[in-house]
Amino acid sequence: MADPLTLEEMFLQEVRDLYDCEQRLIKALPKMSETAATPELKQAFESHLAETEMHVTRLEQIFGMFGQEAKSDTCKGIKGIIAEGEDILDEDTDPWIRDAGIIAAAQKAEHYEIASYGTLRAWAQILGRQDVRQLVEFTLEEEKHADEKLTGIASRLNARAANVRA
Amino acid sequence: MADPLTLEEMFLQEVRDLYDCEQRLIKALPKMSETAATPELKQAFESHLAETEMHVTRLEQIFGMFGQEAKSDTCKGIKGIIAEGEDILDEDTDPWIRDAGIIAAAQKAEHYEIASYGTLRAWAQILGRQDVRQLVEFTLEEEKHADEKLTGIASRLNARAANVRA
Repeated sequence: MADPLTLEEMFLQEVRDLYDCEQRLIKALPKMSETAATPELKQAFESHLAETEMHVTRLEQIFGMFGQEAKSDTCKGIKGIIAEGEDILDEDTDPWIRDAGIIAAAQKAEHYEIASYGTLRAWAQILGRQDVRQLVEFTLEEEKHADEKLTGIASRLNARAANVRA
Repeated sequence: MADPLTLEEMFLQEVRDLYDCEQRLIKALPKMSETAATPELKQAFESHLAETEMHVTRLEQIFGMFGQEAKSDTCKGIKGIIAEGEDILDEDTDPWIRDAGIIAAAQKAEHYEIASYGTLRAWAQILGRQDVRQLVEFTLEEEKHADEKLTGIASRLNARAANVRA
């Protein structure tokens, strides 16, 4: 029988989950950017794509800091969230309304990552790995900032969506 | 051909998604509570179950406020998040470490809901439905509070998990 799972192993499971998550987002973000009508939103997705590539690199560094090869485990959470987002991309609707829907989907993805990196930060702290904790912190702050940026874009956009509808 | 989707219809799609989401959580929470070892965590899940039942009732009120029957659409996002949580419930590990994992899964669920209700609040505002916005706001605040409570429990628990490991 296998030994019981340690906190470090559970931490690494979560890193493998996020490694898959970030790579799925790298595939999804260009589609969101292409479909978005609002230039500000397109640009937000493009700059978040560059950040997401950096998040993948940081996860690879974290694997290395634990003497592990980088490896993915299917991230069921983000898979479902991205599938929801794809449904919105296919909707027949006004471009501004679709953009409001795309932002809603993107914010679900951001919140998924905020929760996950928040957990990794707490566990890295407990494991006494300040070096790892700091890398996680950089990514966590970027995810929070991306979410706030989307809230700002949404507030300008939602008003336009309502006008189109009226 | 169907008419293009309006913001109100997209709002109602999101309500149907959350109606499914909350009902799935009503099924998942008792399992999480039973498996949790820490009394404080068990209690948090039990009291959040009562809140979740109220969230379902509020969503039914919202359907009524738009003259609609309550109806579910499969919530792919929470389905994936709950599946991840179930994997953790099955782990062979120390009870405190499993609790840390259960909290991580629960916080992903909370963040999913925080993003979703945040979107509903913004859209209710744009639709000029202050009555709906207020109901959404009540639930949103409870979800945020549940997430903060879990962070507090995690910080006490993670230290114990690390001691068990050491």
